[in-house]
Amino acid sequence: MVNLHPFDPVTPQEIQLAVRVLEGTLPGVKLRYNRIDTHEPIKKDVLPYIEAERLGKPLPPRPARLLYSYFHRLDTKVCCKALINADTRSIIYLKELPEGVQPPMDVDELADIEKLCMQHPAVLAEIEKLKLPPGMSVCNDPWMYGSDYSNEKRRLFQCFMYMVAVDHPENNHYSLPCKFCPVFDGHTRELVRIDYLPHGADTQTTETQPWKPVKAIQYAHDLLDTPLRTDLKPYIVQQPEGPSFSVDGNSVYWQKWRFRVGFNNREGMVLYNLTYDGRNVFYRLSVSEMTVPYGDPRAPYHRKQAFDVGDCGFGINANQLSLGCDCLGHIKYFDGYRADSKGNPVHLKNVICMHEVDNGLQYKHTNYRTGAAAVSRNRQLHIQMICTVANYEYIFIFILDQAANVELEVRATGILSTVPFDNENGETVPWGTNVGPGVMAPFHQHMFSFRVDPAIDGFKNTIYYEDSVPLPEDDKNPYLVGYTTEQTVISQSASAETDINRHRVFKIRNDSVVNPITYKPVAYKLHAAPSQMLIMGKNAIGHQRAEFASKPIWVTKYQDDELFAAGEFTNQSRRANGVETWVQRKDNTENEDVVLWHSFGLTHNPRVEDFPVMPMERISVMLRPDGFFTKNPALDVPPSTQSFNKSTLHAEPANTASCCSAGGSKAKLYKRID
Amino acid sequence: MVNLHPFDPVTPQEIQLAVRVLEGTLPGVKLRYNRIDTHEPIKKDVLPYIEAERLGKPLPPRPARLLYSYFHRLDTKVCCKALINADTRSIIYLKELPEGVQPPMDVDELADIEKLCMQHPAVLAEIEKLKLPPGMSVCNDPWMYGSDYSNEKRRLFQCFMYMVAVDHPENNHYSLPCKFCPVFDGHTRELVRIDYLPHGADTQTTETQPWKPVKAIQYAHDLLDTPLRTDLKPYIVQQPEGPSFSVDGNSVYWQKWRFRVGFNNREGMVLYNLTYDGRNVFYRLSVSEMTVPYGDPRAPYHRKQAFDVGDCGFGINANQLSLGCDCLGHIKYFDGYRADSKGNPVHLKNVICMHEVDNGLQYKHTNYRTGAAAVSRNRQLHIQMICTVANYEYIFIFILDQAANVELEVRATGILSTVPFDNENGETVPWGTNVGPGVMAPFHQHMFSFRVDPAIDGFKNTIYYEDSVPLPEDDKNPYLVGYTTEQTVISQSASAETDINRHRVFKIRNDSVVNPITYKPVAYKLHAAPSQMLIMGKNAIGHQRAEFASKPIWVTKYQDDELFAAGEFTNQSRRANGVETWVQRKDNTENEDVVLWHSFGLTHNPRVEDFPVMPMERISVMLRPDGFFTKNPALDVPPSTQSFNKSTLHAEPANTASCCSAGGSKAKLYKRID
Repeated sequence: MVNLHPFDPVTPQEIQLAVRVLEGTLPGVKLRYNRIDTHEPIKKDVLPYIEAERLGKPLPPRPARLLYSYFHRLDTKVCCKALINADTRSIIYLKELPEGVQPPMDVDELADIEKLCMQHPAVLAEIEKLKLPPGMSVCNDPWMYGSDYSNEKRRLFQCFMYMVAVDHPENNHYSLPCKFCPVFDGHTRELVRIDYLPHGADTQTTETQPWKPVKAIQYAHDLLDTPLRTDLKPYIVQQPEGPSFSVDGNSVYWQKWRFRVGFNNREGMVLYNLTYDGRNVFYRLSVSEMTVPYGDPRAPYHRKQAFDVGDCGFGINANQLSLGCDCLGHIKYFDGYRADSKGNPVHLKNVICMHEVDNGLQYKHTNYRTGAAAVSRNRQLHIQMICTVANYEYIFIFILDQAANVELEVRATGILSTVPFDNENGETVPWGTNVGPGVMAPFHQHMFSFRVDPAIDGFKNTIYYEDSVPLPEDDKNPYLVGYTTEQTVISQSASAETDINRHRVFKIRNDSVVNPITYKPVAYKLHAAPSQMLIMGKNAIGHQRAEFASKPIWVTKYQDDELFAAGEFTNQSRRANGVETWVQRKDNTENEDVVLWHSFGLTHNPRVEDFPVMPMERISVMLRPDGFFTKNPALDVPPSTQSFNKSTLHAEPANTASCCSAGGSKAKLYKRID
Repeated sequence: MVNLHPFDPVTPQEIQLAVRVLEGTLPGVKLRYNRIDTHEPIKKDVLPYIEAERLGKPLPPRPARLLYSYFHRLDTKVCCKALINADTRSIIYLKELPEGVQPPMDVDELADIEKLCMQHPAVLAEIEKLKLPPGMSVCNDPWMYGSDYSNEKRRLFQCFMYMVAVDHPENNHYSLPCKFCPVFDGHTRELVRIDYLPHGADTQTTETQPWKPVKAIQYAHDLLDTPLRTDLKPYIVQQPEGPSFSVDGNSVYWQKWRFRVGFNNREGMVLYNLTYDGRNVFYRLSVSEMTVPYGDPRAPYHRKQAFDVGDCGFGINANQLSLGCDCLGHIKYFDGYRADSKGNPVHLKNVICMHEVDNGLQYKHTNYRTGAAAVSRNRQLHIQMICTVANYEYIFIFILDQAANVELEVRATGILSTVPFDNENGETVPWGTNVGPGVMAPFHQHMFSFRVDPAIDGFKNTIYYEDSVPLPEDDKNPYLVGYTTEQTVISQSASAETDINRHRVFKIRNDSVVNPITYKPVAYKLHAAPSQMLIMGKNAIGHQRAEFASKPIWVTKYQDDELFAAGEFTNQSRRANGVETWVQRKDNTENEDVVLWHSFGLTHNPRVEDFPVMPMERISVMLRPDGFFTKNPALDVPPSTQSFNKSTLHAEPANTASCCSAGGSKAKLYKRID
């Protein structure tokens, strides 16, 4: 472990070490492992280390590598959490979780419940009642049980059942949802009950009836009624001299950026210690939580509210990416590890991909007098993770560019979570969209929390917002055109609202470093994604579980262990223990180690075009320097020229004019500069 | 002219024809031409023609090709407008414009004023007072005069003066603004006066003083203090089998899309008659206007409010693009024409470029049971125009994709409009940003009007908005999670507000065509860009000139000649005659030929990083099918495979695994499908 960096992902040796330490601590006790992963290193120990790295000074001792595990004692049936120092191979703490506090779902458990459901006699009896034609079968997706207003303390799973139209690896069972939903106890493995689902526009349920055949809506290319398009021509990206990045382990250097690619089971991809041209910019960037509440008001759908980070884990569910499918060009992959329920390391290959992208022009100016054009392209570095959470897919891309911008792009795709609906006579519901015969996709929201731990030229920063407002209509503004900005410092931990009508911009500045041109503190700004917040009201339990998604901006003072916007344990939670709690400390957040949390999302009222697989819907937030540099930091990017880009002219004789020599419409009036 | 399509851009022969017709109509009168261009064809005449084209039926007679001209009679000194039928070679009307109504600026006129200014003795005397060191000189950018509260009727130009630090085709004179500003009469060519500019944080002006040398902030690569980056590696796009589009004149076919590329002097790029898979979608898409008001309250800056479409013309100012600089890949260019002041056609080569782009993934789903992944990439068609309006650049891209989405992307770049500011002692102003020694960039807004003339499965449509709202907390919503949508039809021409807190979405539907799956009328929706509207208040003349930019949405009933959001004549206008006027007719807009106008923009409080040339700031609006198809229209796009994409693996042995066979994190638990 000696050579590991504080920000490196967990290694298989560390997973094995954690198992040995735990089994040594609890000799003879059988354990079922839910998670074994790195625990975030203690920030105050890390800072001197990464500062020495940045400044090229001798390194102080490496901060301790910490590991944590959630596990289930099979003797006492109690869930526990342990924190382990991997360097000293010792337990820091080992505690039992309070009754009803549920660790996230794990891979083995879900596979077990899925199988259990398909073998249970009561379930088989229901399937029998469907009287399916030969060749058809039934499958299920186990889901987190969610929460309602009961005092449920068992670890429960609800299994959404679907009919399988054809035996095909890409059969779309979501097109044929069944009308019953078994609930299992994950610990006792008992069937708790079978919920019957509404099948019309009201809440009425009925006993399982023979299925009335309808055609499944398929997405697999060989199951389509129509042939594939034949007129799409290849589009190949070549980097004959290789990429512009260099990689050393998880450390990446690209175009004045240096950073570390982190990976954990919960958040998946994390970027650490981003510096630009040797200056600190961000300590840590991640998607800290995400919740998907559904708008169908009827039981049992009221419990459908996934926390895809806290309940499932983006790392656990990250796709193992394939060359040439998920990225185009010259691709570097990063791997990760998880533990299975026995404590064995499982290799998660290619869970993050990294490649360069040409995103069109970064800047252009044509001097109309001379026709001389300055053109630079916008080369980007994309670091991407794709997560499959049962039916749905999320694509997360951190995008760095040469002008020191950082973008988080999210693409929602995959398959809608569907419910049965007898719509053969033109029925509709006011909270969903018919997406096929017998199938409806309820309205829902996807609410993300982007956690920004800034380090703008240092680790003490101030967050404020700036509004653009008209000047008063007085004698200093006699023509009524004047406008100015108003700044409001968030000097105590708090939430804040976005405000498009005032062009509200959130900024992070370092009060100790003044820009010599602007005479103002150096800063970055957040290009937020103002979004509808949680639609359900404050009294809904789903709101209390996900209060982070009720306000777009939260500012907290940094504390170790405060990483997840809805708190550490979201699975079957009844309230959050996250940002909404931490801001109540009213910590000083001016010129302090602060964290900015941005909640944004999509209100997704499905289109029928989103079925059977959804064209991606894109949402993006950006962090841009604003008075951090003294001028455009991308000025030194080489110009965009044909000799470098080697483009092809369409169906015209080869153009031999020199490149970018005459970009202006007035070029003819002035001498050409060749 | 026989072979021209109604939507084809003006030809050089048509320009010559217009001149002959006008000179024949006004024999012996000397004319100075301001514009000669196509006039939009009469829609009711066009519809049968394009419908016959779409349906492959015999074509009716082609609608008349119409041309218009603004010109100046040098005998009576009056500005006129003529409308000409190019087929019959006859005048439809010829009218004198009312006194004070100014046609846009033209190229020859600007060059003339620029030169006139540099030769005027009074200006030369001011320049002399600067006592510039040897090798330095002065230049000027003539600007539209704008409007204030006077009753000005002359055609005026204000010349912003700058010092030229070095004789270099890319010298950045905007870094060294002078403190005086001559105003010229464009018709009499007389110097009206010299305005002196404020030089501190207040309104005080002084007579021209010797210049105190400061260093200019340059952007040209050979004028930088630092060397260019050497670690950017080539990134080459190859389409060895050619592009996926085919082009016939200005008609384009690409991936089920058919449309025509239009071009005119005023709006530049226009898309006409967009159909997808043979179905009508849009009749016409364009950026109809744009205004840039500045927030510096001091005279004479209060008149700085460019209308870049109406005053200048995006077509007139479109860059003549160069292969390999402005686009990457396989590029098709389109040309345009304008007339010079003598009526000679001027070829505008390569003013629009078109090429394909790979925009990452369009959709993905991994069946976690089987590991089988369905992946399609998002191939796009980009149709791009870049406009230089003096210091500033705008990049406009219409983006079509295979899922029937249409996006309008705008990138703002170029150079900030700067003003002199004595800031050597740390001075700042509340309405601008210091971007260098002696130079400040005032706050400003860029307000665009996107004009959408829809044809959703036909030419009679209805526009409505849909809000996402919680269900009442009653016994039909006992768990408080339910939400639904509320629809409001815009049944009379009107403006409307965006509303992020209600996730308001604007939709365009065809009430006569019901979707067989959703049971609702087929529709497209607008992904708007909710933005701060005009900051200046209603009483400001700049507000009255640009009322389109005070509301984000306008709906009008189509009428010929209603194309431009701020009206036909914006140059020195004192009020608009555009959408704000047309909505007052209170026309029925339900199931009618309607037009949707979306105003959006950037409040641009400059960053110092935006100087000396600005990394692009991107803003985008999108039109997406919403219940227009019965399922994802891109399902038939071939899958993303390595054999097609030919990506490269970074620094690892060649990966021989078959492509996309195991995308799911659970792949190990299930049989692999290869």
